Amino acid sequence: MTTPSHENPGLAKLKARLTEVWQEILSESRFVRIIQQGEISKALYALYMIETYHYTRHNARNQALVAIRTGSDDRHYQKFCFKHAEEEIGHEQMALHDVVSMGAPQGFSIPPPLAATEVLTGYLYWISYQGNPLQRLGYSYWAESCYEYIRPLMARVQKTLGLTAAQMTFFVAHADIDEDHSALVNEMISKKCQTPEDWEDVARVMETSLRLTWRMMDEVVDAHARLLAGQSERGAFLQAL
Amino acid sequence: MTTPSHENPGLAKLKARLTEVWQEILSESRFVRIIQQGEISKALYALYMIETYHYTRHNARNQALVAIRTGSDDRHYQKFCFKHAEEEIGHEQMALHDVVSMGAPQGFSIPPPLAATEVLTGYLYWISYQGNPLQRLGYSYWAESCYEYIRPLMARVQKTLGLTAAQMTFFVAHADIDEDHSALVNEMISKKCQTPEDWEDVARVMETSLRLTWRMMDEVVDAHARLLAGQSERGAFLQAL
Amino acid sequence: MTTPSHENPGLAKLKARLTEVWQEILSESRFVRIIQQGEISKALYALYMIETYHYTRHNARNQALVAIRTGSDDRHYQKFCFKHAEEEIGHEQMALHDVVSMGAPQGFSIPPPLAATEVLTGYLYWISYQGNPLQRLGYSYWAESCYEYIRPLMARVQKTLGLTAAQMTFFVAHADIDEDHSALVNEMISKKCQTPEDWEDVARVMETSLRLTWRMMDEVVDAHARLLAGQSERGAFLQAL
Amino acid sequence: MTTPSHENPGLAKLKARLTEVWQEILSESRFVRIIQQGEISKALYALYMIETYHYTRHNARNQALVAIRTGSDDRHYQKFCFKHAEEEIGHEQMALHDVVSMGAPQGFSIPPPLAATEVLTGYLYWISYQGNPLQRLGYSYWAESCYEYIRPLMARVQKTLGLTAAQMTFFVAHADIDEDHSALVNEMISKKCQTPEDWEDVARVMETSLRLTWRMMDEVVDAHARLLAGQSERGAFLQAL
Repeated sequence: MTTPSHENPGLAKLKARLTEVWQEILSESRFVRIIQQGEISKALYALYMIETYHYTRHNARNQALVAIRTGSDDRHYQKFCFKHAEEEIGHEQMALHDVVSMGAPQGFSIPPPLAATEVLTGYLYWISYQGNPLQRLGYSYWAESCYEYIRPLMARVQKTLGLTAAQMTFFVAHADIDEDHSALVNEMISKKCQTPEDWEDVARVMETSLRLTWRMMDEVVDAHARLLAGQSERGAFLQAL
Repeated sequence: MTTPSHENPGLAKLKARLTEVWQEILSESRFVRIIQQGEISKALYALYMIETYHYTRHNARNQALVAIRTGSDDRHYQKFCFKHAEEEIGHEQMALHDVVSMGAPQGFSIPPPLAATEVLTGYLYWISYQGNPLQRLGYSYWAESCYEYIRPLMARVQKTLGLTAAQMTFFVAHADIDEDHSALVNEMISKKCQTPEDWEDVARVMETSLRLTWRMMDEVVDAHARLLAGQSERGAFLQAL
Repeated sequence: MTTPSHENPGLAKLKARLTEVWQEILSESRFVRIIQQGEISKALYALYMIETYHYTRHNARNQALVAIRTGSDDRHYQKFCFKHAEEEIGHEQMALHDVVSMGAPQGFSIPPPLAATEVLTGYLYWISYQGNPLQRLGYSYWAESCYEYIRPLMARVQKTLGLTAAQMTFFVAHADIDEDHSALVNEMISKKCQTPEDWEDVARVMETSLRLTWRMMDEVVDAHARLLAGQSERGAFLQAL
Repeated sequence: MTTPSHENPGLAKLKARLTEVWQEILSESRFVRIIQQGEISKALYALYMIETYHYTRHNARNQALVAIRTGSDDRHYQKFCFKHAEEEIGHEQMALHDVVSMGAPQGFSIPPPLAATEVLTGYLYWISYQGNPLQRLGYSYWAESCYEYIRPLMARVQKTLGLTAAQMTFFVAHADIDEDHSALVNEMISKKCQTPEDWEDVARVMETSLRLTWRMMDEVVDAHARLLAGQSERGAFLQAL
């Protein structure tokens, strides 16, 4: 169960800021609009899952990087980072599984990441490698609690594409796993953030990484449009889904 | 003198793609529009110079990082990277100098980088740390040749703010230094890019890093607006310029 | 329980090579001889525990580093690395605890590492950062199973100094923890080493890191001699133990 | 010309400590003794050149690493590091050239580094990556000035093996290049070392890296003995030289 955010005024403020960004995304993202209008195709969803694969496979690594940095040690936080890293291993495989479950050949040739995905990935390494070690919690904060905001979208995708839960393992499995993670992340933020700077660093990384994810989603829409228009061969095999 | 791009069809194509992105920026960037309309203030220009300071101080480092990576060695390219890194050392000081020359106190307290600047910086480290070692040339390609595109803007800033050349050292000095660098970068790209993938990697990093710079410029406009509206204290002392 | 080494001919060979190196150490190390002759002092033992603290506090970090490296992914091995890293967190505190339990003031000022300890630490990072990702298992292989070889020495130290088990937590706790770890490490080596090169890389790191530990132990003897001779002030407060 | 060490008492002390370590090496190293007794063979010298190749090819990289570390910036020192890194690029090729000049086939298959060489290499990265950024100057200090100590040995090798200067480019070229470098390194140490800790850090890295080089030389003797005894195939083709 998620720690109620009213327990900690810092968390409540963080939650409010997160909700604002999500509201912006839910009303302005082109990818979201396509889902809401029931116009998502299997190819578009697969392209999105492929980008999800690309950044997710770095999550365990950049999470662990936080704890590898030398300097003054917070052993409790280091333990959290390594434990969380361990749990994140292999989650990207669920994204690939879901693409295959829609009909892509097992072991299909994965297109390289889009530029927006590289930007997101690079940012996550950068904020893990330097700066306030606590700041990466801002990414975990929204990533582990996003189901609250995107559940209706996922339901819409499932209905539009006629998918079973077994074809959406990335989201279904995460929704369960992440409820526990989310409580842990909230607890860690509450305990470790001591100064206004700590809270601001966590909030900035939360907002920035979520906005970069938004850009990634919308760049998937552009990549799909180029594919439909015959301007690109990237992921062309997905049109057969 | 810049190597004429017609010498190499790959360079000509790269140049064409660069020109397209610049045209987008020159017609759509909010920061550019403010300059073009003669509405830039010293505070806004100083805020921009401060972000310039922030990402520029990492340029030598991420440039050298390319050559530190172990793996198959291209000694000629490694030498270029270290030499270029050496030359980039301290360029960020020109940005600070220019802020001081407009009236900011010597040794003023530098506000932390904006989120968009951190995103750009993180991206430059990421593409230097992994992937095709040649790809960072895409960043150098536009950075060293940007004066061709931004000279009119710089002239407009100078006129609007009544600045002397000695108050715009970052741009004036770079315009000279970079003409030589630009020829070297063009030569390196022509010699080292052997495959379509090499050219595409260079082009993608060129376009992505330039677009991230655009976002940084426009985020400076937002930061300035928040300052004017009294919603932020970040860089408040710059209002006295 | 340790997986019997006869199950796997590679492990049996590794074990034989390990036993040879230990026999060399047990008969040639000056530190070992001092223990065997019942001449160890609290100051000497404390100096040794302090070096143990210094390299142990990097173990979790260099262990995790193996799994952070990008490249072809072995998720099973990555999971092992992060899990093991998590478990190693804080073990260096036992070394400090044991020094305090002998009478050093709580929070005593820790002298910087000896050169030999820096050499060992640097080596462990280097073999974790590059080369065959499996090779760090060679370090774990001897580190987790060393009690078989050093138990008589530890008993001798305990007797000579009149220590309780609660004053030797670093070794007592590890002897228990590491029996499980050791079985896991053996299993991982058996499963992952596929080629003669894999086995040789593991064996080389095993032997080299153990020999560097030997040098560290003997350098502790030298540091102690300098302290007794009044040639150094490093750790002078330990003479009061 | 080397800056006379009497100009700076710190340098004079460093020089005295260096001379002591060299005297130990010149009287105790087994590799040195073999040279002095006129018993070096082409195979043994080639094995030594191959290890020289292995650690030398990392020198530019770990030198640049010092300047890449984020943190408080000393631009003058950063510039020195990058410039020096640039100059070090490709020096390892001289070692390979010299092996070929004695009769090894062009492009011969280079055996992997010995354990002692990996230990030296790992140490140089470690002291470049963390700790006092000035400390790597301790390595440069002895490496750039070693000709003063080893010139008689090199002359002896040349005579014993009947080599021309063109077959000993690694040492002949370095003896010239490094006289200038050495003056620069001395100047940098004199200017940058401000505290007793700075001097001690430089001295410790000087002594430790030189002692690790000594171990590497003597491990080459062991590798050669194994080759002669038919216990190893490593570098077997060198016996034909």
